[in-house]
Amino acid sequence: MKIGVLTGGGDAPGLNIAVYTFVKLAERKHEVYAIFHGWKGLLNKEVKRVTSVDLLDFAFTGGTYIKTSRTNPFKDEERAKTLAKNVEELSLDVVVAIGGDDTLGAAGEAQRRGILDAVGIPKTIDNDVWGTDYTIGFDTAVNEAVKAAESFKTTLISHERVGVVEVMGREAGWIALHTGLATMADFVLIPEREVSWDFVAERVKKAYEAKRWALVVVSEGIKSYGGPVDEFGHVRLGGVGNELAAFLEKKTGLETRATIPGHIIRGAPPSAFDRVLAVRYATAAYEAVEEGKFGVMTAYRDGEISYIPITEVVGRNKLVSGPWLKLYETYWGNSE
Amino acid sequence: MKIGVLTGGGDAPGLNIAVYTFVKLAERKHEVYAIFHGWKGLLNKEVKRVTSVDLLDFAFTGGTYIKTSRTNPFKDEERAKTLAKNVEELSLDVVVAIGGDDTLGAAGEAQRRGILDAVGIPKTIDNDVWGTDYTIGFDTAVNEAVKAAESFKTTLISHERVGVVEVMGREAGWIALHTGLATMADFVLIPEREVSWDFVAERVKKAYEAKRWALVVVSEGIKSYGGPVDEFGHVRLGGVGNELAAFLEKKTGLETRATIPGHIIRGAPPSAFDRVLAVRYATAAYEAVEEGKFGVMTAYRDGEISYIPITEVVGRNKLVSGPWLKLYETYWGNSE
Amino acid sequence: MKIGVLTGGGDAPGLNIAVYTFVKLAERKHEVYAIFHGWKGLLNKEVKRVTSVDLLDFAFTGGTYIKTSRTNPFKDEERAKTLAKNVEELSLDVVVAIGGDDTLGAAGEAQRRGILDAVGIPKTIDNDVWGTDYTIGFDTAVNEAVKAAESFKTTLISHERVGVVEVMGREAGWIALHTGLATMADFVLIPEREVSWDFVAERVKKAYEAKRWALVVVSEGIKSYGGPVDEFGHVRLGGVGNELAAFLEKKTGLETRATIPGHIIRGAPPSAFDRVLAVRYATAAYEAVEEGKFGVMTAYRDGEISYIPITEVVGRNKLVSGPWLKLYETYWGNSE
Amino acid sequence: MKIGVLTGGGDAPGLNIAVYTFVKLAERKHEVYAIFHGWKGLLNKEVKRVTSVDLLDFAFTGGTYIKTSRTNPFKDEERAKTLAKNVEELSLDVVVAIGGDDTLGAAGEAQRRGILDAVGIPKTIDNDVWGTDYTIGFDTAVNEAVKAAESFKTTLISHERVGVVEVMGREAGWIALHTGLATMADFVLIPEREVSWDFVAERVKKAYEAKRWALVVVSEGIKSYGGPVDEFGHVRLGGVGNELAAFLEKKTGLETRATIPGHIIRGAPPSAFDRVLAVRYATAAYEAVEEGKFGVMTAYRDGEISYIPITEVVGRNKLVSGPWLKLYETYWGNSE
Repeated sequence: MKIGVLTGGGDAPGLNIAVYTFVKLAERKHEVYAIFHGWKGLLNKEVKRVTSVDLLDFAFTGGTYIKTSRTNPFKDEERAKTLAKNVEELSLDVVVAIGGDDTLGAAGEAQRRGILDAVGIPKTIDNDVWGTDYTIGFDTAVNEAVKAAESFKTTLISHERVGVVEVMGREAGWIALHTGLATMADFVLIPEREVSWDFVAERVKKAYEAKRWALVVVSEGIKSYGGPVDEFGHVRLGGVGNELAAFLEKKTGLETRATIPGHIIRGAPPSAFDRVLAVRYATAAYEAVEEGKFGVMTAYRDGEISYIPITEVVGRNKLVSGPWLKLYETYWGNSE
Repeated sequence: MKIGVLTGGGDAPGLNIAVYTFVKLAERKHEVYAIFHGWKGLLNKEVKRVTSVDLLDFAFTGGTYIKTSRTNPFKDEERAKTLAKNVEELSLDVVVAIGGDDTLGAAGEAQRRGILDAVGIPKTIDNDVWGTDYTIGFDTAVNEAVKAAESFKTTLISHERVGVVEVMGREAGWIALHTGLATMADFVLIPEREVSWDFVAERVKKAYEAKRWALVVVSEGIKSYGGPVDEFGHVRLGGVGNELAAFLEKKTGLETRATIPGHIIRGAPPSAFDRVLAVRYATAAYEAVEEGKFGVMTAYRDGEISYIPITEVVGRNKLVSGPWLKLYETYWGNSE
Repeated sequence: MKIGVLTGGGDAPGLNIAVYTFVKLAERKHEVYAIFHGWKGLLNKEVKRVTSVDLLDFAFTGGTYIKTSRTNPFKDEERAKTLAKNVEELSLDVVVAIGGDDTLGAAGEAQRRGILDAVGIPKTIDNDVWGTDYTIGFDTAVNEAVKAAESFKTTLISHERVGVVEVMGREAGWIALHTGLATMADFVLIPEREVSWDFVAERVKKAYEAKRWALVVVSEGIKSYGGPVDEFGHVRLGGVGNELAAFLEKKTGLETRATIPGHIIRGAPPSAFDRVLAVRYATAAYEAVEEGKFGVMTAYRDGEISYIPITEVVGRNKLVSGPWLKLYETYWGNSE
Repeated sequence: MKIGVLTGGGDAPGLNIAVYTFVKLAERKHEVYAIFHGWKGLLNKEVKRVTSVDLLDFAFTGGTYIKTSRTNPFKDEERAKTLAKNVEELSLDVVVAIGGDDTLGAAGEAQRRGILDAVGIPKTIDNDVWGTDYTIGFDTAVNEAVKAAESFKTTLISHERVGVVEVMGREAGWIALHTGLATMADFVLIPEREVSWDFVAERVKKAYEAKRWALVVVSEGIKSYGGPVDEFGHVRLGGVGNELAAFLEKKTGLETRATIPGHIIRGAPPSAFDRVLAVRYATAAYEAVEEGKFGVMTAYRDGEISYIPITEVVGRNKLVSGPWLKLYETYWGNSE
């Protein structure tokens, strides 16, 4: 078989390991091709045969060596035709697509239209892909956010301040929740729970009274934030973290600082968990290819690696809920 | 209620978070006591009331602030009587015991004898506690072993050598397996799979031919190693890693070095996964106390936190098996 | 003797080691007192006798365990009188002041007025204290900025983007210069060199053409930046990093992102260099006390630890110049 | 000009940056060649033209991308002739040799014999090259040794043990001394100071009494250690660290453990200091080439980068002495 591998969407630590491992397994019997720049690479025929030794030098670093893009190959019919034509001309039998909702959606659509056989692997530092407990990159991102928060804490303690850490998570609060639990933060704001900033201020004040510093973790996507443009139409470059810090300082009278780790948390060397997850997903993806199980995404469910139809996954986000939301309520719920 | 908390056995990153979180929850309604030095602390009445603010300064560091010991309170009947007497005099209603097989075993025995009500939380960097997928400390240990292996690799590549990393794991190969997967090592030796060192040498030679360096990960507990004493009765201080390296160098003719991260991998600051796991376990332990669910250990099963009777857990190790062993076979199995 | 120790100004990694080491040496013969919250602590008599064992638990962490403030004890004559009175009542013979320009300035003034005998130790992540090559905290800050830049780079490479890292440095470009050298950045902007943003854009474009990504490091204090308020009077929360990124994107047509490590780089665990520097400074400070050498600051000059009168130090910043500026010109100068 | 660059001896973090930076500067005007495997590469004509973009992917990692060897090209006259012939055939005008005493010695000898013009750059994690305060790799090695010691400490504290960290340093105690200062260890053993192990045991006991744990740092090269073979002729695989730990446990009656970070500390990603040092040395080496200043080594002296004749450097080690030895005496001297 001729098998292509691509990565799409935002980069995430662990992508290179997934690609490397898949190639290492598949090259025993098949020809494997790297498709550069995600789906765009299939539209532009940026495709190159690779061996695991070719990929070795970058296998364990962050980012994605085969590059990425956010290009949707089904944006219009012309693109879709180009895609089908190229897949045919390249004689690709299977494409392994590693990405988030958009990238996987394109894989599902290509499968549905019979353009190619696809296997998906879920990746996003936000961890909001439906149908799987963990996506590649999430654990590393949380580790980095936690390190940032811990460094920030030494400053807060020394100066006896309040601190706000803004972390990524546009739709879902997974990074914020995990960072908050891992640091036992005094408050955590996630998109899944509406909470008034006045309530946050109260909790912060109480925590400050007990120990003369306080830490708040906020997800960039919380709904109580007015958004990236202020009332005058000016772009709010600093984001919700800075706004919340300004609010808390005014409301509590306590000196407050914000920090926004931003892009840093997505580019770190992959954590052990993300490395092993990438290997497990890549192995499962290869087994799916061998067994002719297509149109599926590898998933971490019930503590094991399994498969789920891509069509069940796309178009919806996995939000914080169930036991995780209960955990949120235990520490930062309204009712205490 | 008066609730005591103790940590026993080898220290592990995340213990302090578990203790801190439990105290933070329990102190809302109950009196909480730190029992210092594990079960020994109950025999010696080293017990002190604590609040979460007391513990805050150490909550997120490695090690265990309330100290540990390997003392078995049921070694003889005299000790058992002292234990019972002290628990009564201290009016302790419940003891939360955080530890591995021995520590949990004592908790189960104390419960069985009606000396106290116990809830267990599983901890060990080896990850070999029965009944749970993950124990506190394992993820951090693997992260540190992986970092050590990656640093070692740059030396191997520069000098074009073979390298052997020896990691902890006396009964089970969890750390070795995960370190091996995370680095896609050329070979991994675990106690669960007998393999001749000649076979390892062959695989190393083949890998070296492809890329001019090779990495082997070995668990300290593999059975093919003669043990800590050589044929003259002299203690082999360096352990299996050095022996295997010497063997491989002789057999393959390739310059080979060993490295033994040893105690370093157990003392690092806890990883995000271990932090969150510790919080989840501590929360579940508190809920068990509130619901009067005693004689149980918190466990990570099927991707969720649940409980398992301590009696089902003690006296046996969780070895590498099932999908994990299949993964091992995929990469380092005999049959390739 | 009764000796007080205080830390003032922004916190920096290594302060705790300096305090701990000084106490460890001085307690052999003298009574040592921690003065909490910098000079404010002398105005409020927040003073407590300490031993090195008291300080041990925090000796190697970031931040300052004895807290800090920016209070100037000579802001008015009333304060100065309170200071003199309290020093007398506390019978303090000597004060060791660890801080930047302001903190050291107060030490020098107290010495000049005969209020107390002072020895200074220079500290600031910005490294801009006059008279010394290195200040406590600088090396750690640079290490953290470099790690942030390296993580950022993996994202830039994967997405083929331009990236701007904004680092601290209000008056002097030391952190930016070192971060730029350590990463061989494509361009570095420092306050000591005026440069048009158009020129930066040109250089970025050229670098991008060669490798399809580019990295720019900018010091928060560069003069070509309009400042923290835009033309409409709105606070520019994101700072110069975001502004420069927006400019470069517009000018070059290349997708550009900014990242601002901010407070994170000042709170990390101290690097080995900062630890050893802190020990050397503390040892020298103790020797100065023993020899009755007062009104001096410990300094790193000509590769060795020596002393310089505080009066020579205060009121001016050490800017990037000499061989360091030549190095800057070699890589990012106009003339290439 | 045609300029060759090589790295020799043990690998060290920062080598890649030095090579990359030199190439980046020199390629503006000259042809630059990578000589693979140190001096061996000139004997085997393993030489390849390179550009900075070729080297970019590995520029900031540990190890040496252009490989290394310990081959001495002047071992016999035949080799020396081959060297001369190859240099002539390759038309190399200058060779930049980055290495320790042996590698630099060969550069000096080649210069003396008129075979080629040489510029040296000092590198070794041991920091024992004569004539320079710092060599590339030392700062990173110390940082890693300190991290290892800090992790080890959490275990020592939790179990109330004594710990021995063995670090590299065959002739000189630089790594041990810096690790000891950076952690304020209870005792440090370096080759430059004879000390009886009984004295160490006394100091350890005293330290243990004060805080119930103790940390000792030992350089692998101390003379009071019997060496790598025991009285029966068996190889002592564990080295001095294990022997010292066994001695201390026996003598003090305190549970004692050893840890040997070994190869791990030399393979880490380069620290900021080593990165900047590598850039400064490479820049100075290029300037020397431009100015026709040959037979010299770049050096860090009196806090600045300068040059020293290679002939003054080779054949002797820079040992701990002067202010550094005084610092040693202050904390671990006999006389206290």
